[in-house]
Amino acid sequence: MSGTETPVLAVLRGDKHPPDMEPIEEAAVVRYTDADGLADALRGADALFVYDFLSSAVPAAWHAADRLRWLHIASAGVDPVMFPELRESDVVLTNSRGVFDDSIAEYVLGQILAFAKDLPRSLRLQAQRTWQHRESERVQGRSVLVVGTGPIGRSIARLLKAAGLRVSGAGRRERAGDPDFGTVYASDRLTEYLPEMDYVVAVAPLTEQTKGMFDARAFAAMRPQARFINVGRGELVVTADLVEALRTGAIAGAGLDVFDTEPLPPESPLWTMDNVLVSPHMSGDFIGWRNALVEVFADNFWRWRAGEPLRNVVDKKLGYVPSSG
Amino acid sequence: MSGTETPVLAVLRGDKHPPDMEPIEEAAVVRYTDADGLADALRGADALFVYDFLSSAVPAAWHAADRLRWLHIASAGVDPVMFPELRESDVVLTNSRGVFDDSIAEYVLGQILAFAKDLPRSLRLQAQRTWQHRESERVQGRSVLVVGTGPIGRSIARLLKAAGLRVSGAGRRERAGDPDFGTVYASDRLTEYLPEMDYVVAVAPLTEQTKGMFDARAFAAMRPQARFINVGRGELVVTADLVEALRTGAIAGAGLDVFDTEPLPPESPLWTMDNVLVSPHMSGDFIGWRNALVEVFADNFWRWRAGEPLRNVVDKKLGYVPSSG
Repeated sequence: MSGTETPVLAVLRGDKHPPDMEPIEEAAVVRYTDADGLADALRGADALFVYDFLSSAVPAAWHAADRLRWLHIASAGVDPVMFPELRESDVVLTNSRGVFDDSIAEYVLGQILAFAKDLPRSLRLQAQRTWQHRESERVQGRSVLVVGTGPIGRSIARLLKAAGLRVSGAGRRERAGDPDFGTVYASDRLTEYLPEMDYVVAVAPLTEQTKGMFDARAFAAMRPQARFINVGRGELVVTADLVEALRTGAIAGAGLDVFDTEPLPPESPLWTMDNVLVSPHMSGDFIGWRNALVEVFADNFWRWRAGEPLRNVVDKKLGYVPSSG
Repeated sequence: MSGTETPVLAVLRGDKHPPDMEPIEEAAVVRYTDADGLADALRGADALFVYDFLSSAVPAAWHAADRLRWLHIASAGVDPVMFPELRESDVVLTNSRGVFDDSIAEYVLGQILAFAKDLPRSLRLQAQRTWQHRESERVQGRSVLVVGTGPIGRSIARLLKAAGLRVSGAGRRERAGDPDFGTVYASDRLTEYLPEMDYVVAVAPLTEQTKGMFDARAFAAMRPQARFINVGRGELVVTADLVEALRTGAIAGAGLDVFDTEPLPPESPLWTMDNVLVSPHMSGDFIGWRNALVEVFADNFWRWRAGEPLRNVVDKKLGYVPSSG
């Protein structure tokens, strides 16, 4: 953006209106819309803020984007807007990398400790007023593989290391001496090192390469004592294979915050499995997250307005913001 | 112990027989007993190993202890053997300090994360197959007061600090610059600094000074958002006052692993309160804890047999092992 013209900003809102937008409303013509009005709002718009970041409405309205130059999405994962027309366009795509990192890390540590300390069973016994002493597991020294070496994976790695776990990573390229992970294994050889892991944490971006990477073969390679934790995207997993692995005892448990269909349908067998913790895609959503999301957008908005380089520019070939720029 | 005579060791076992006792059985006459046989076993015994560390059987059998010189208890808390006759005797008392520290620290962090991430409600919603997004709390930067500055309290402090919480301690003497706690407040002025705390963790030894220290006045001083976690002794708390504080919202929740009556009676209102996590005195009991307990006892046994100074000697006036010897 440059010049003196007032830009037009379309905002795809969801159930909630984004907070703290007043300063931006003074500097742009802001068109708030739901999915149905998105095409109309896009016509003549210079920028699009996808605040309803799980919406799949953008591809269908894209034909109306006649002068769009920038799209910002209020999430770390950009898979809902990774359709061919956007990929091939000159529209700059930015995301909200950073907002969720530490909150998700705390969530993952909480899930690991809940499994190790048998907390779900304590709660079930409590509901029955039953005192039943059990021994529990230590987490110190346990091995964790964090699949996904972006900022969220790094925050998870740092917190789990601080809590005494042994952490390694899996990413596109195998390498040693990573400051957060030490060893980073190659994701395409996952089954070779899964047998060593007590916990496997999925936080990779959803791309053609990562879709369905946790399948029957991957779960078969894990220890029967291993727990699988997904805070990335449901589609990283072949859900039927995960259910089978949990049923047969190929793995010991799963902590799932994301699902291939959200909300998780009532008929899913995952709801009722004793060794599964289901939560409603909330791991990153700390109190204040909505303000933090708008803050990240606003920072980029003022840069864009001033013609300065944007932050968190997504590499549309990779499907995420490359590390270090 | 010295000389060539074979010593007599009484072992108060509980439901379970202590593991790994074979080497000791070769070096001593070992009399395993339950509570009913304790007096007979004590007659002529040189040492007593209280493996059933929650048993209250020792005082009633004490009259038979006609040549006892050493009593070792397989726990950190020594309150079950803190009766006047033992206090006033020359019998050396040692405990199992150290075994439970890191396991309890992990447990406390798990409870804090469970509260912050609203895990109990996620489990209740899961049981109803209900998808209900909520915002959750961060733990980074939250304030924690650890009441009890012994080795367990220190391990808790180190782990919580590593996870990003702000930790201070409360002990007998107020002081600054403590390596684990930074500031240590005086326990007898608890209500002055309780208002600043998001979490209060009770892990003090049970003594005349600490009994009932968490009463209506203490709970009234806490924030309505505060959670109280007890991994010390149930008798540190006036249970009726805690129930009332939880009912009225004077505090937001409690994670309770210990109770003034154990097992917690079925009629206790604590079982059914939504903001309470009840667990059956298990926070320290990691897989392998029984072997670790016997290892600590055996280390002292060989020292005693060789006439060397014992480890973990309890100051019978204080009711715990003083810091640094």
